[in-house]
Amino acid sequence: MPDRNDLLDLSTPSLLLDEARMERNIDRLAVRAAALKVTLRPHLKTVKSVEIARRLIGGANGPVAVSTLAEAETFFAAGITDILYAVGVVPQKLPRVQALRTRGCDLTVILDSLAQAEALASAGVPIPALIEIDSDGHRGGLRPDDPALVALGRRLHAAGSLRGVMTHAGESYNIRGEAAHTAFAEKERSATVAAAEALRAANLPCPVVSVGSTPTAHAARNLDGVTELRAGVYVFFDLVMAGIGVCRPDDIALSVLTAVIGHQPAKGWILVDAGWMALSRDRGTAAQAVDQGYGLVCDAEGRIIPDLIVTVANQEHGIIARRPGSTAVLPDLPLGMLLRILPNHACATAAQHSSYNVIPAEGGPLKVWDRFGGW
Amino acid sequence: MPDRNDLLDLSTPSLLLDEARMERNIDRLAVRAAALKVTLRPHLKTVKSVEIARRLIGGANGPVAVSTLAEAETFFAAGITDILYAVGVVPQKLPRVQALRTRGCDLTVILDSLAQAEALASAGVPIPALIEIDSDGHRGGLRPDDPALVALGRRLHAAGSLRGVMTHAGESYNIRGEAAHTAFAEKERSATVAAAEALRAANLPCPVVSVGSTPTAHAARNLDGVTELRAGVYVFFDLVMAGIGVCRPDDIALSVLTAVIGHQPAKGWILVDAGWMALSRDRGTAAQAVDQGYGLVCDAEGRIIPDLIVTVANQEHGIIARRPGSTAVLPDLPLGMLLRILPNHACATAAQHSSYNVIPAEGGPLKVWDRFGGW
Repeated sequence: MPDRNDLLDLSTPSLLLDEARMERNIDRLAVRAAALKVTLRPHLKTVKSVEIARRLIGGANGPVAVSTLAEAETFFAAGITDILYAVGVVPQKLPRVQALRTRGCDLTVILDSLAQAEALASAGVPIPALIEIDSDGHRGGLRPDDPALVALGRRLHAAGSLRGVMTHAGESYNIRGEAAHTAFAEKERSATVAAAEALRAANLPCPVVSVGSTPTAHAARNLDGVTELRAGVYVFFDLVMAGIGVCRPDDIALSVLTAVIGHQPAKGWILVDAGWMALSRDRGTAAQAVDQGYGLVCDAEGRIIPDLIVTVANQEHGIIARRPGSTAVLPDLPLGMLLRILPNHACATAAQHSSYNVIPAEGGPLKVWDRFGGW
Repeated sequence: MPDRNDLLDLSTPSLLLDEARMERNIDRLAVRAAALKVTLRPHLKTVKSVEIARRLIGGANGPVAVSTLAEAETFFAAGITDILYAVGVVPQKLPRVQALRTRGCDLTVILDSLAQAEALASAGVPIPALIEIDSDGHRGGLRPDDPALVALGRRLHAAGSLRGVMTHAGESYNIRGEAAHTAFAEKERSATVAAAEALRAANLPCPVVSVGSTPTAHAARNLDGVTELRAGVYVFFDLVMAGIGVCRPDDIALSVLTAVIGHQPAKGWILVDAGWMALSRDRGTAAQAVDQGYGLVCDAEGRIIPDLIVTVANQEHGIIARRPGSTAVLPDLPLGMLLRILPNHACATAAQHSSYNVIPAEGGPLKVWDRFGGW
């Protein structure tokens, strides 16, 4: 029997959110950003929830970052106006961008090519844009010393669109330990500030210098020249972040409630009703020092059961077993027993669900917060 | 410009369904099942769509299989009554099972333990059940020679619940070629028929003998003793099925429409707006002879572009590149250009979307069919 009887009323699998842990995670980065004297711009792609957005920005109307125009539209409808659409914009999406701006949303786009700048310029009215900078070879963006940077800045400035530069050090997810993250944060900072300086040296304005990823945001010691910090998954944390030392497993606020549906005793298998449909197919810990399979198993109260992980995920079946090499005794987990699975990647696991079942920080009954999806 | 201008009106990423290919896939297995003289029970976990369910069963009220009670409830509301809930049942889900049965749904459950049989027996009214048989060590179920089988059969029969036996040869996904699948189908058949015979030898009824997986369903030569065949992903097919030879890539009816959002020419990367949120994290081809990354790239008309795959997937970004070792010339795919990505695993990719944009077999405008999720 879990310590909260109302968990028994949930169908399984269900998404659980520990509000007290979430608030602790939110406070932790807010305190850091204040100490570093930068604005924190939470990335809402992780949460896709108006309720949680409000927790992240308090009573303010931003700033936030989003990964889709559906997020921009939903959060704008909820009163958030300072929004960075942090995925490279394409010409065919500009009508939706303009529609939001016309209605009063201060929506900024990102780009890294002249073709995108030309599309913006032909929109008729200025659409503010940040130039994406490649600080770590992770994905998109221009290197800060690329001559195309200043040319792009000029074209944007002529169109009234140049607002600044931004980067995302996505490779920081693949390195471990605070010292390494601190060094990576400096790499992120210095590349982006160098890009800003290159634009300013060409007499171009660059008021916004935006950096961030959850690992670097928690490890940066100095953000001189940076105006804002972005991070997303820190609100929930997950096993990938625990595996690289950004949080501890008991900081993870998100889990999947599941029920035992069968056993294969000869194999040491416990079958549960959380498969990849509930957990996602994310295997982000596969390349880490400790491979957590499809997630780490806890009892219904959220206490980790030593060495027990989800080793296999089918659509609606998970197979729980001891991690390879473990000498732990397989616990007796009877039919119907509730368990919680901590996720590899909170963004991916949350995306498999349409609501959060929230265990309130203040006690009392479970709350249900909607989540949305789509594009 | 794609040959269908209306693709330009879709936001990207979007899920596309080629209705003509789907109909060909549906007909292919229907013809096989008829030749094998078994009833085909399509598994609707792949499609989660009332429209497509109707295509699969024509005007009939079944039979179908489902993986969640949400599917059972939705399809029952749409008029389908003969439903197999093909995931091991737990006591706390019995009230929903009974509610459906009371309303006239002929819902059958599956189980493999006395604990589940006791829960059924205590329900008060008989709930029909199939005993899950383990034919290949894949997941749940009892081996046909397990003495627990007859004991379980007796307990179910005493409760008025024994309807038969079923298996799913999930390991058939990991073997390649028709001859291997034919042999695997015989293993699936013989194990399940042996279980049925063991029950009958104990004077227990076993009217239903249900087997199936997409690979074995397409390769079985003889299903003597089997009464029904189940399969799910065959309706769409995918790269995993193509990789093991069950279909060709141009049988794949499902794809994700995406737009080019950037380039990293020095790396041979083309960035698109389909990341794992649109494609899923499924890497089912990773262990196959040809690793398709996160999907195979086609032009907007659906023609495969040689050697181009999605090599990296972030939440809303995909990185397209030539497959390792390719000497193909990287094509010029300009900003905003539309592409289609064929999925590794159709069930997982479809699950990331809330509707199908259907390219009609008969021509004419795109149709939109809803998809549902949840449990």
